[in-house]
Amino acid sequence: MKIIIVGATGTIGKHVSAALQKDHEILKAGSKSGDLQVDISSPESIENFYKHAREFDALVCVSGDGHFGPLSGMTDADFKVGVNSKLMGQVNLVLIGQHYINSKGSFTLTSGSLAEDPVLLGANLSTMNGAINGFVHGAAIELENGVRINAVAPGVVEESPVYFPFFPGHIPVSMNRVTQAYIKSVLGAQTGQVFKVI
Amino acid sequence: MKIIIVGATGTIGKHVSAALQKDHEILKAGSKSGDLQVDISSPESIENFYKHAREFDALVCVSGDGHFGPLSGMTDADFKVGVNSKLMGQVNLVLIGQHYINSKGSFTLTSGSLAEDPVLLGANLSTMNGAINGFVHGAAIELENGVRINAVAPGVVEESPVYFPFFPGHIPVSMNRVTQAYIKSVLGAQTGQVFKVI
Ligand SMILES: NC(=O)c1ccc[n+]([C@@H]2O[C@H](COP(=O)([O-])OP(=O)(O)OC[C@H]3O[C@@H](n4cnc5c(N)ncnc54)[C@H](OP(=O)(O)O)[C@@H]3O)[C@@H](O)[C@H]2O)c1
Ligand SMILES: NC(=O)c1ccc[n+]([C@@H]2O[C@H](COP(=O)([O-])OP(=O)(O)OC[C@H]3O[C@@H](n4cnc5c(N)ncnc54)[C@H](OP(=O)(O)O)[C@@H]3O)[C@@H](O)[C@H]2O)c1
Repeated sequence: MKIIIVGATGTIGKHVSAALQKDHEILKAGSKSGDLQVDISSPESIENFYKHAREFDALVCVSGDGHFGPLSGMTDADFKVGVNSKLMGQVNLVLIGQHYINSKGSFTLTSGSLAEDPVLLGANLSTMNGAINGFVHGAAIELENGVRINAVAPGVVEESPVYFPFFPGHIPVSMNRVTQAYIKSVLGAQTGQVFKVI
Repeated sequence: MKIIIVGATGTIGKHVSAALQKDHEILKAGSKSGDLQVDISSPESIENFYKHAREFDALVCVSGDGHFGPLSGMTDADFKVGVNSKLMGQVNLVLIGQHYINSKGSFTLTSGSLAEDPVLLGANLSTMNGAINGFVHGAAIELENGVRINAVAPGVVEESPVYFPFFPGHIPVSMNRVTQAYIKSVLGAQTGQVFKVI
């Protein structure tokens, strides 16, 4: 299988890449790193990326920024950071990618546990995660040619200690469990699912 | 209590307004209709609106458009219809309104059942509904001075027969049950909740 991993060099992405590259052809993508560059916040960059990536069987996105900060000072512009990256970045990978992906292919996006289990400063990410989960439900019933779509929704991961102070009482999830959720989506047969890793 | 209802003249909004105006002072808002105009897709219009609306105890939003159409032809621009109206319109009513609302006040937003129970052509609305639900969870734990926030998530309502062909097998929900969910949010004491009416 040929698998594109956007965010392949990231904290989570490098483990997903390592696990999948044993048995599959991996194309690693990032805005600066990887085999081929794409800026997911730009639809033009995504279109150009798919033209160069050629045909593929699965796309995994482990990328997407949000704004982390107090609600009391949050502005429209702050909020749009998440809209343009974590939400529209991932949505556009699917809207555009549906025209390039092989039949029976799959899209795996990343949301997160904040959709339902919020923390202080996280309102923008709670929103974007809920949005991605909703998108996966809506898109799954329309994708053609047997193409599937799921999201992985991890809690804070054990290899991101910089976030721990903002997640009091949250038990960091093991990278192995998170990685397996991506494998389940790509190599399994389910669609329209949100695989929570909490 | 002084209650602002954005979308007060709409299919759902007119019932919510009728129910609340018996015992409360209602300020009806719409882009063209009502006592005072606001275009929720514009942060400047919202800021200006709150300046003229003066202090208030509750804001109910029963407004917000999305794009309804096939995923196969959906573009970034189509998707942004929902982002700018149903998502950012409601989010900005809260981000800006938190600086104007009275202590112990409440915000009640509208999402919908498509977040989890999708229909064909509805991927954009599934996304926006999931986003609003996530926002309500994230914002509830940060709003200050006892201010609350909830969402009402209705299925297709009995007074919107034009949508019925797109909701096969969905039992339209009674306007009375939908109206009561808004009342529960405004006059009750819960926060961070999504009141599903299905
Ligand atoms: N870490 C956690 O605890 C955690 C928990 C739950 C959910 N998540 C979610 O999981 C995702 C990945 O998190 P992470 O911690 O692994 O992130 P990370 O370590 O910051 O890695 C981000 C990856 O995305 C790439 N990237 C950044 N901006 C990009 C852009 N505009 N276009 C394309 N690629 C871009 C980066 O490569 P370049 O530098 O080359 O661009 C990098 O490979 C995020 O959506 C995050 O919200 C993370
Ligand atoms: N109807 C259903 O079956 C159903 C089911 C689930 C969820 N919902 C959701 O419930 C909400 C209301 O639906 P509805 O069917 O009652 O809508 P509707 O009948 O179309 O009414 C919309 C209301 O919003 C106002 N409005 C429209 N654009 C606006 C803008 N840019 N700024 C401020 N106000 C604006 C309209 O007044 P003006 O004309 O004066 O602008 C009107 O009062 C929507 O978010 C919808 O997605 C509806």
